[in-house]
Amino acid sequence: MTTGTKGRFITVEGGEGAGKSTVIAKLYEELQARGVDVLLTREPGGIDIAEKIREIILNPAHTQMDERTEALLYAAARRQHLAEKVLPALQAGKLVLCDRFIDSSLAYQGHARGLGIEAVYEINRFAVGDCMPELTLFFDIRPEVGLARINKARGREVNRLDLEGIRFHQLVREGYQLVMEKDPDRFVVIDAEQPMEQVYESALRVLLDRL
Amino acid sequence: MTTGTKGRFITVEGGEGAGKSTVIAKLYEELQARGVDVLLTREPGGIDIAEKIREIILNPAHTQMDERTEALLYAAARRQHLAEKVLPALQAGKLVLCDRFIDSSLAYQGHARGLGIEAVYEINRFAVGDCMPELTLFFDIRPEVGLARINKARGREVNRLDLEGIRFHQLVREGYQLVMEKDPDRFVVIDAEQPMEQVYESALRVLLDRL
Repeated sequence: MTTGTKGRFITVEGGEGAGKSTVIAKLYEELQARGVDVLLTREPGGIDIAEKIREIILNPAHTQMDERTEALLYAAARRQHLAEKVLPALQAGKLVLCDRFIDSSLAYQGHARGLGIEAVYEINRFAVGDCMPELTLFFDIRPEVGLARINKARGREVNRLDLEGIRFHQLVREGYQLVMEKDPDRFVVIDAEQPMEQVYESALRVLLDRL
Repeated sequence: MTTGTKGRFITVEGGEGAGKSTVIAKLYEELQARGVDVLLTREPGGIDIAEKIREIILNPAHTQMDERTEALLYAAARRQHLAEKVLPALQAGKLVLCDRFIDSSLAYQGHARGLGIEAVYEINRFAVGDCMPELTLFFDIRPEVGLARINKARGREVNRLDLEGIRFHQLVREGYQLVMEKDPDRFVVIDAEQPMEQVYESALRVLLDRL
């Protein structure tokens, strides 16, 4: 949490199929029902400049996009979303629940894409300054289980291309594990292989213990 | 110069009114006339992704632009211009003359805007990797002299708003001086208060000595 802010900053991280977005939406509703002043957000979060940066990252015509350019653009969008949305909410005393933050860049760009966790951390520390989350819920799931869950929802089975994707997502999970080893006090691991209702109950319990 | 490249990478820096762009255009012509295979460029240099990033930076509607976002966007555009234009030219054995590079960010964002030279250096080292210029010509001019030169070209005199601008440009010049102190071997200072023909001759002499 940033010096001088009254709010609390909590992030949620995890790989594909971990049920992160579903659970965070339920957590948001539950906290609101309990009278907590909470903001649920994710980058670029409707912030004009951050949205335009994200458009550059995702534009399929940009096949020449260098991986370092991409990492810098993610950091830039993160900064603008933080400056315009997260920091004002924290200053207003809100609980900010953010779906993915700095650790996604460390796991995906830093480790899985091979740019180096330390190097990606440096540019992201420039972006976030002293506004690090006080708590990060990591929804942990083996990639093959996460993928099976996604495919089940889509009504199809795991195929060869999925398996190539799994190798990448194994690197992402390994990246998260390396990040957690360096900053163990900030993280709580949620077993995301449980049935979704239990994943939600586990996450809610962790949040309520903290608040 | 990057490991594994055959070309030579030279940058030109300086404040407003130093005559940098005029001189570098003449240097480019002279080097070409002498048979040197030279590329003259400046960011974003017609590189699609870099141009789009620059549009976000310069868009007058973006009054909410955070200074750290801006610095990260400059670094991102720098990376893409380097990856798509400078590195291929160096690998092809060319002499690359680049009008402004990393030192502009250090002097303008790092020092004059107060983000810190070291912090801005970190994100820019991520952007440029080991591709630092082997030589940087710094066109040195007192801001009031540079401004008088620009105004003379525009047919008007220095006014109150100009003087506020001068304070900023004094910080920029101070920023360049701090950067040069940290990396003195890379820089050659050109006295840009001389008549333009002599500024050009001084710069040409330095370049020819090196080549």
